[in-house]
Amino acid sequence: MLGEHRVVIVGGGFGGLEAAKALRRAPVKTTLIDRRNFFLFQPLLYQVATGGLSPGDISAALRSIVRKQKNTETLLAEVVDFDVAKRKVILRDGEAEYDSLIVASGSVLHYFGNPEWERLAPGLKTVEDATAIRKRIFLAFEAAEREPDPEIRREWLTFAIVGAGPTGVELAGALSEIANDSLKGDFRSIDSREAQILLLEAGPRILPAFSPDLTAKAERDLIRLGVRPLVGVRVTAIDERGLTYEADGRTGRLAARTVIWAAGVRASGLGRLLAERTGAKTDRSGRVIVEPDLSVPGYPEIFVIGDLANYPHQTGSPLPGLAPVAMQQGRYVAKVIEARLKGRQPPAFHYLDKGSLATIGREKAVAEFGRIRLTGRLAWLAWLFVHLMYLVGFENRVVVFVQWAFQYFTFNRRARLITGEVDIPLRTPARQTTDQDSAPGANGCAARGVAGETRKR
Amino acid sequence: MLGEHRVVIVGGGFGGLEAAKALRRAPVKTTLIDRRNFFLFQPLLYQVATGGLSPGDISAALRSIVRKQKNTETLLAEVVDFDVAKRKVILRDGEAEYDSLIVASGSVLHYFGNPEWERLAPGLKTVEDATAIRKRIFLAFEAAEREPDPEIRREWLTFAIVGAGPTGVELAGALSEIANDSLKGDFRSIDSREAQILLLEAGPRILPAFSPDLTAKAERDLIRLGVRPLVGVRVTAIDERGLTYEADGRTGRLAARTVIWAAGVRASGLGRLLAERTGAKTDRSGRVIVEPDLSVPGYPEIFVIGDLANYPHQTGSPLPGLAPVAMQQGRYVAKVIEARLKGRQPPAFHYLDKGSLATIGREKAVAEFGRIRLTGRLAWLAWLFVHLMYLVGFENRVVVFVQWAFQYFTFNRRARLITGEVDIPLRTPARQTTDQDSAPGANGCAARGVAGETRKR
Repeated sequence: MLGEHRVVIVGGGFGGLEAAKALRRAPVKTTLIDRRNFFLFQPLLYQVATGGLSPGDISAALRSIVRKQKNTETLLAEVVDFDVAKRKVILRDGEAEYDSLIVASGSVLHYFGNPEWERLAPGLKTVEDATAIRKRIFLAFEAAEREPDPEIRREWLTFAIVGAGPTGVELAGALSEIANDSLKGDFRSIDSREAQILLLEAGPRILPAFSPDLTAKAERDLIRLGVRPLVGVRVTAIDERGLTYEADGRTGRLAARTVIWAAGVRASGLGRLLAERTGAKTDRSGRVIVEPDLSVPGYPEIFVIGDLANYPHQTGSPLPGLAPVAMQQGRYVAKVIEARLKGRQPPAFHYLDKGSLATIGREKAVAEFGRIRLTGRLAWLAWLFVHLMYLVGFENRVVVFVQWAFQYFTFNRRARLITGEVDIPLRTPARQTTDQDSAPGANGCAARGVAGETRKR
Repeated sequence: MLGEHRVVIVGGGFGGLEAAKALRRAPVKTTLIDRRNFFLFQPLLYQVATGGLSPGDISAALRSIVRKQKNTETLLAEVVDFDVAKRKVILRDGEAEYDSLIVASGSVLHYFGNPEWERLAPGLKTVEDATAIRKRIFLAFEAAEREPDPEIRREWLTFAIVGAGPTGVELAGALSEIANDSLKGDFRSIDSREAQILLLEAGPRILPAFSPDLTAKAERDLIRLGVRPLVGVRVTAIDERGLTYEADGRTGRLAARTVIWAAGVRASGLGRLLAERTGAKTDRSGRVIVEPDLSVPGYPEIFVIGDLANYPHQTGSPLPGLAPVAMQQGRYVAKVIEARLKGRQPPAFHYLDKGSLATIGREKAVAEFGRIRLTGRLAWLAWLFVHLMYLVGFENRVVVFVQWAFQYFTFNRRARLITGEVDIPLRTPARQTTDQDSAPGANGCAARGVAGETRKR
């Protein structure tokens, strides 16, 4: 309608979608723009990567979520620029005019200046990433089954996860369950339980966002599951047969044919672009440093939320890149827009920390809700409950619940499809000795050498 | 073990898997070889292509299915040749020796001498095919939503399915439900119900394997769902904006940006290769013509089953490429191998026709069990029951049942993810007029011109 306040939201993740939903009764016309046609529940993406759930189980079509909001339209489009003077978002194939703009394009994988690692050590950000990692994991066991050379077989059965935040820990725990339970008895030449799962962390401890006693508990749980957490280990090179690391000033090598990257993300490129157009500042990770009301300095009509925003006003350091932060910011910005239309300005954004959760394995998790710290079965149930509740779509909740129940009782993982291009032959045609080969046993020794040691970054 | 009878099975589809399972207590060592690590329940693949189910829901890891059969090993490998003199299957990365060989590598899409159509009109044979078609379907609606030119928009909203066997009919019915129910209200610029779904058949009637009265009933049902069945229409060319056809000696053009191929398959290339190595004969579709015990003439130790076999002994014409045929043949061949080990030879293979089923839409299906012909709700329930029962894995059955129940009541389709590379921009930058353009309205007129007419192939 003519004269109506137009809100453009860039990105249909936790932040953008929550903003769109919060604006459903506001006197505005909302346009939600995303390059994908679906919302992805990223906290469960590691379960797709490990064959427990299918991509469809943790996704919901964006336009279907906002179908009943008659003031909202959804565009499958790619934003390439911002014309902040004319208040336009430039799409690859058009443009969208706004009165208020919410940029919530999230984060992308970050390889710290080693973009070539992306091919060697896939990370977990998109559905395609998840199915690619799933392929790598299950293909590694298949290759080990076919491989006559015991050394190469051991390389196939060694999995290195780089980065021990919640994603790394959850992947390690799931991989342990795959090796020890889901695949047990499936193979004839190998025993899947021989698989080694290494969890590498450059910092001094795993799960650094949790309190030290929960870190210690999580570490014990992981070790009990057969995962080897290695802290103070900085990866310096990755190739097709493993990685090189530095620990305590020494250099070492780990032979592992499957390396998974869980070490870091940075803000999506739209952050830097928006900063260029508005003169705003970005931090080292490319996040836009925002005002107390989450707007861009000098542009009160432009808001940046979620992983793309650096909001230092509350704690001095930026808020973490978590779904609850993005969701609360999405709702807050919707309120600011509504309030301003009525001539008011609400108080600064305040993040209500509802706590942190990380699951390690069956009946093993850690949770921190303010001063309350949970571990074991209780934390695990809290994790299950929170993730089921926040999953988008009632049907998704039911289907995921059914699958989790089956997985709990049968240890089976249904969705372990190896899809897409598969590099057959799996078996190396002949043993090729190169300079980079690790000596037999080096893997275990090196790992033992650094295990448990702590070192500052 | 030394001296044990080695059975090699090539292909883990309905036939090969059934043979492996039937041999579980036989005094043999079975090796099941497949290029994929999972069994795919192909009869429900069209539901993945139309966003109703996820690939994981209709798949099961092959080695997990035969996990408890200690006499069975599974190899993820590609067969490239047969050495029938030395009784060896040649893999891309090794070989497998056999005493008995069962070749069950199935069928592949067949474009009748037009391989370039594969890119333009994807068919439905693999999981990747299904997700590619799913992408095409849902992207077409997204593109229509973004498209300002009404003619191009109509092209995006026109879907042509080539081939009106069960797969074509099931796809057409599902597409109609997507357009009329699942997507209703999701869009702002288009009404998804404007979509046109054309079902093209070169022969004189749809569902030619069913009796004529069931064809007539199915045709009425399809028309009621908004599908336009066009019979006696032979496709002569396909391009990115539609297809050219011949009907009644006249040439016509249909503008449709989404063309799906359901017109035919031929035997996998291993059939011809095996025929070359053994001197066996193949038919026009590349199927190996087998003996009454399903063995290859002159090679009693080599069996060919399922879609790869031409078995004319029972009815004069080859048995159809259906799951029940493959399964019965798999079990039969297992029995022959066991009997021969005891010095016996069982009677010739006899196919027990349990009937045919095709679903059209909710509470609409046709079924033929010998003389019993069912339509409507009863046939639909029979279809649901049979497909749930034959689905591999109890968990798959439960999860699929839950999703069907939701779909029945909510009309929603959860798994409508557009994944993989997406060609953005969706919108055509400027209107390009080419010689191949159909005149406005040509689409509808041409379709009306041939609808309902019958013509021999």
